[in-house]
Amino acid sequence: MRVVAAKEQLLNAVQIVQRAVSVRNPLPILSGIRFEAVDNKIFLTATDLDMGIRCSLAAEVIEPGAAVLPARYISELVRRLPDVPVLLRAETVTGSVTIQYGQSETSINGYPAEEFPDFPIPSGDLTFDLPAEVLRGLVRQIVFAAANNENRPVFNGVLFELHDGYLQVIATDTYRLAWRRLPLENCEKIDINIIIPGKTLTELVKVIEPEKVVNITVTENQILFKADDTCLISRLIDGQFPNYKQVIPQEHLTRIRLKTKELAEATERASLLTKDGSPIVKMSLEQNTLIISVNTEAGRVHEEIPVFQEGEPFQVAFNARYLGDVLKAMGSEEIIMELTGPLSPGVLRPVDDQEYLSLLLPVRLRGV
Amino acid sequence: MRVVAAKEQLLNAVQIVQRAVSVRNPLPILSGIRFEAVDNKIFLTATDLDMGIRCSLAAEVIEPGAAVLPARYISELVRRLPDVPVLLRAETVTGSVTIQYGQSETSINGYPAEEFPDFPIPSGDLTFDLPAEVLRGLVRQIVFAAANNENRPVFNGVLFELHDGYLQVIATDTYRLAWRRLPLENCEKIDINIIIPGKTLTELVKVIEPEKVVNITVTENQILFKADDTCLISRLIDGQFPNYKQVIPQEHLTRIRLKTKELAEATERASLLTKDGSPIVKMSLEQNTLIISVNTEAGRVHEEIPVFQEGEPFQVAFNARYLGDVLKAMGSEEIIMELTGPLSPGVLRPVDDQEYLSLLLPVRLRGV
Repeated sequence: MRVVAAKEQLLNAVQIVQRAVSVRNPLPILSGIRFEAVDNKIFLTATDLDMGIRCSLAAEVIEPGAAVLPARYISELVRRLPDVPVLLRAETVTGSVTIQYGQSETSINGYPAEEFPDFPIPSGDLTFDLPAEVLRGLVRQIVFAAANNENRPVFNGVLFELHDGYLQVIATDTYRLAWRRLPLENCEKIDINIIIPGKTLTELVKVIEPEKVVNITVTENQILFKADDTCLISRLIDGQFPNYKQVIPQEHLTRIRLKTKELAEATERASLLTKDGSPIVKMSLEQNTLIISVNTEAGRVHEEIPVFQEGEPFQVAFNARYLGDVLKAMGSEEIIMELTGPLSPGVLRPVDDQEYLSLLLPVRLRGV
Repeated sequence: MRVVAAKEQLLNAVQIVQRAVSVRNPLPILSGIRFEAVDNKIFLTATDLDMGIRCSLAAEVIEPGAAVLPARYISELVRRLPDVPVLLRAETVTGSVTIQYGQSETSINGYPAEEFPDFPIPSGDLTFDLPAEVLRGLVRQIVFAAANNENRPVFNGVLFELHDGYLQVIATDTYRLAWRRLPLENCEKIDINIIIPGKTLTELVKVIEPEKVVNITVTENQILFKADDTCLISRLIDGQFPNYKQVIPQEHLTRIRLKTKELAEATERASLLTKDGSPIVKMSLEQNTLIISVNTEAGRVHEEIPVFQEGEPFQVAFNARYLGDVLKAMGSEEIIMELTGPLSPGVLRPVDDQEYLSLLLPVRLRGV
C-alpha cells in the first residue's frame, strides 16, 4: 500500500471510524483501524463486532493494499500532523506503516491486515430514508430513557416500529419511558419492528453530519445506516419489547400546565441537598401552586411554582435525576403533566406536541 | 444575621473564596465558608489553614451576624438561583441558614460560626504592587517548573527575590528550572527573599481580575495579596532555596535558533509512541537540521526541523513532557537553545527576551 491523502480528510475519517473501536476488546486487532487503498480511495474500517463503521476518502493510490494500525496511535498522530499531503506506505516485510509528512516520518507497527474481521455491508429491500436531523432529535428525546448494561438486553435498545406510514420510537428502562411518533413519506407499505441498541444511535448521530439524509437498510439481524462516504452497521437486539401501549395511562385525575425551565431549575436546586444515590424530591399540588420539597440531613428545600391546574390536588415523589432527564428532552417552553395517583406513572408532554411523551414512575415513600 | 444581596455578586464572591476550601481537611468546619454581615457588606472567608481567601460584597444588612455553611451546598445552590435579590437569614436556634429567593427557599444546616478559625489580615511595612497581568505571566512562565508533593518543601515553592529594584522569580523541581527578572518601580530600597507556595500563586491568578493591581504585603511567615474586595493570605515556605545562579551555565558549545511551534509539535508527535511513564525523545543536530527521534515497541519517529546553528553538532535526550512544558511557557515565536554537552542542562530562552530562561536537565541514555 502506497497512498497520498490530505491531512484534514484523513483526520475526519479516522475520527469517525474510531467510534467503533473497542478499547476493552479481548481481540487485540479490534483496537486497530483497517486502511485499504483502492480505486483512488482509502477505506477506513473499525468494529467492536457489535457495531462497525466504514468511511472512505479521496486519495491518490500509488499502490493498492491494506494495513491495520492501532487506532490510538494513528488517531493521535494524524490529529497532530501539519496540514500537508500525507503519504502512507506499508512496509510489507515488517508489517509497519510509515506515515510521511514534509521532511519527517513516523512508522507505526501494525497488525496483519488479513486477520481483520470480515465486514460485509448488508443489503436488502427493506430500506427507507431519515434526515440526520430527525435521527438527532430521536436520540435526544428517546435514547436517554433506555437502560445501560441491563441484564435484559431489550431495555438497552430503542424500538423502531414502522407501520402504516408512521414510525413510532420507544425506549424504557422500566423506570421511565419515552415515546415519539412521526409520519414517514413513501413508507406506507413497509412494516418494521426492530430493537436498535441505544449506543448505536448515540454513536450514529455523532458521525453523521446534521444536514445529510441517512439511508437505512434493515435485514434480519442487522441494520445499515448510510450517508455519503460513511456506513454504520449494527446488530439488532433480539427479543420482545414490552407492550408499551399498555403502560401509557389513557386518563388522568389531575393535569397541570407549567414552564419547563421553572420545574427543571427547582428540581435541580432541590436535589442538591439529597444524597447522590437517592435524589428523591417530593411534589405536591395545591391551588395552582406546585410545591417541590426535600428534607434531608443537610437541610430542606421548599420551592413554589405557579401552574395551571385541572383536577384534584396530589402528592407524589420522583427521582430528581430521572425527572431532570425527561424535562431536558421535552424541547418545549411549556409542558403538560398528568397524574392518576401517587404510585401511577406521571405523563409529561410538550404543550404543543401530541406526538411525544415521557412516562415517569413515582418513588414510593416510606409511610405514604 | 439577616442580609439581602444580589445573586450575581454573591455567586462571584462564593466562587472566589471557594478556592481556599479544602475538601480533604480533617477539620469538618474547614469545608465551610464563613459569612459575616456587617457595615452594609457581607464578608466571605474560607481557609485550608495554609491559604485563606476573604472577599466582600455590598449588601443590605438588616441584622448583623455570622454563619458558616458547607461550601459544597451553598456554592451549588447560589449558582442555580434565579437572578433575584437573595435573603440570607440565620436561624439562631438551629444554626441553619435559610436562603430565600422569590417564593422559594432553601435551608442549609451550618457549623457554629464561632468555631471557624481566626483569620487575621497580616499588616506590615514591607509592601509593593504588582499588576495582575504580571503575576499571571509569572504563573504561566515559572510555576510549571515547581514540584508537587515533594519531600523537600522548598521545591514546591517559587522564590521571589527583590533586590536593587529588580524582582527575580525562580522555580525548580531539580529536573528543570525557570527564571525571570523584571524591574519594579519604587522598590529600590526593598529587600525580599521569600518562597511562596506554587499553589498560592496558581490560585491567586484565578481569583484576581486581569486588569487589577495587586498590593502585596510580606511578613515574617505570611504573604498577603490584596486587590479591591479580595484578600488572599498564604503562609510562606520556610527553608533555603538552592543557589540557582550556580546551576545556570554561563557558556555553551552549541547554540541553535528555531521556531518554537515546530519543536513543540515535533516533540509532541514523537512522544506519542513513547510509554507514558518515560516519554524520552532523542535530539541530534547536524548541518542546520535538528532531528527528533524515538524508537519504541510501537514504532519509530524521525522528525526534521530546520535551525540556525552556531557551534558543534550534538546528541542529547530530553523528557518530552518537560520539554513541552518549557516550550509552552516561552511565549515567543522563535527560541534560542544552548547546549554544553549530553549531560549538562540545556538552556532555552525566547529569541528576543534576555530576562527569561528555562533550564532542562537531559536524560542519560543507556549506552551513551
